[in-house]
Amino acid sequence: MQEKRGRTRAAFQGELGAFSQQAIRQLLGKHAVPVARLRFDTVFSALKAGDVDVAVIPLENTLAGSVHENYDLLLKFPFEITAETSVRVVHNLIAPPGVSFRTLRRVYSHPVALNQCLDFFAKYPAIERVPFYDTAGSVKMVMEQQPPGAGAIASELAAATYNAHILKRGIEDDRQNFTRFCLLEHAGSKPRAGRHSQDPSGNRRKNQWKTSLVFSTKNVPGALFRALSALALRDLNLIKIESRPLRGKPWEYMFYLDFIGRRDEPNVKNALAHLAELSDFLRILGSYRAV
Amino acid sequence: MQEKRGRTRAAFQGELGAFSQQAIRQLLGKHAVPVARLRFDTVFSALKAGDVDVAVIPLENTLAGSVHENYDLLLKFPFEITAETSVRVVHNLIAPPGVSFRTLRRVYSHPVALNQCLDFFAKYPAIERVPFYDTAGSVKMVMEQQPPGAGAIASELAAATYNAHILKRGIEDDRQNFTRFCLLEHAGSKPRAGRHSQDPSGNRRKNQWKTSLVFSTKNVPGALFRALSALALRDLNLIKIESRPLRGKPWEYMFYLDFIGRRDEPNVKNALAHLAELSDFLRILGSYRAV
Repeated sequence: MQEKRGRTRAAFQGELGAFSQQAIRQLLGKHAVPVARLRFDTVFSALKAGDVDVAVIPLENTLAGSVHENYDLLLKFPFEITAETSVRVVHNLIAPPGVSFRTLRRVYSHPVALNQCLDFFAKYPAIERVPFYDTAGSVKMVMEQQPPGAGAIASELAAATYNAHILKRGIEDDRQNFTRFCLLEHAGSKPRAGRHSQDPSGNRRKNQWKTSLVFSTKNVPGALFRALSALALRDLNLIKIESRPLRGKPWEYMFYLDFIGRRDEPNVKNALAHLAELSDFLRILGSYRAV
Repeated sequence: MQEKRGRTRAAFQGELGAFSQQAIRQLLGKHAVPVARLRFDTVFSALKAGDVDVAVIPLENTLAGSVHENYDLLLKFPFEITAETSVRVVHNLIAPPGVSFRTLRRVYSHPVALNQCLDFFAKYPAIERVPFYDTAGSVKMVMEQQPPGAGAIASELAAATYNAHILKRGIEDDRQNFTRFCLLEHAGSKPRAGRHSQDPSGNRRKNQWKTSLVFSTKNVPGALFRALSALALRDLNLIKIESRPLRGKPWEYMFYLDFIGRRDEPNVKNALAHLAELSDFLRILGSYRAV
């Protein structure tokens, strides 16, 4: 493994300075080497090909919901979740040195970020919103091309990465904007503890483990209820459940489920064996420290 | 009610020609008057203020998941879901008359739409992708401003709305891209049958009714399992379940749930009474014909 000789190389989707890179820092420390990829599937294939040691992907956002694409990819590739972290999405108004707030005329960013700062734009109607591909990429662009009176909205890390100035911090409408990221490694890797994690709920789940899995059931009434008995009868606490229709199989569903517990604890082992019995398909995505 | 004197006015989020407008046609026929609003919350407040008769909002997309913002708004406003429909998201390459595929140099659209047509752009690398605010809005812009060699990606309806040409139909990577919309009306309104609905699974659920609700449980292991017993013990078939952390209440969750059944059927009434007993909070969002 390359990792043993040096710093951990971590694939992520987006440009340098993206919130995923913040997640990499929280999970692996500042010496990890972020390796940018354009798409989520190329993040996964970079790990498969050995171009990187690990991958860091978002699984869900408190406002936008689950990233289904990554759940699909988790099923296609044999990787394991070995850690998780939660990043608070803080949108900052960023500009090249020399551009002041008073000279600002237009602000570039990803439309999702622009739409999360509507109160700011309502307060300053003279500032035009311009959609761009990527939050961090918009900082890179305004630094390189310096369009007159142009700024960007992105993370603090993006400002630091491209040597831009932060004109205003935290201009997002909703402070309850968190994205949960996970660390992916080849199957059989040891779980890691995430560092510097920010918990959206404010209370850290000390020394607790979380197990994530995906399963499907037969299409009969009560199938999910029976499947959940495997956990409920052992007092295991669910922390996420989500159904998703199976492609091309009307009336059949896949369920994403997280619960508190570690896969090698005896009652969790029993619960998983019981769940395997009650489901058509079961894949354990990983057991790791809950943040 | 204005509706009795004339055509139904239906609020939706986006520009004329948006997929929401297609949903309005499927739900209410072509004589309904679409009323565009900038944001989802202003769609809801337009219905509350009586500026429109009904509202049509997306609840989930097969690729992108649930629209949490609209579930939040459903809890804030006292409206009822009276019908649903499913729109297949077809991305078309659209240009002003006179712009041919050979002279096309750049294509404007919402980044989500651009990212759903990656195979097309990989095949034609000379065509530049330019992010824009809105799919239908990008057609409107290229028609009004006619930038040289510029096209857009949007719905067939957007092309028709702005008198633009479709150069290529269905350039999306994934045909399994459906958005489920619902019709909202003031509480106490009669359910309506959606028309011309396209079912993502391909098999229509004839004469079946669906009930949608939101509930929360106490934070104890097995709470969800017990709540689901209210449905499972009556053989009611779940078709959607999703947990969402409650804001500001760590460890507590809200669940979105859909099942097959009509709220005035005796066994459904019993199930709902039982569920109310087992949950901290319960709100029935509506009973309506399943598509």
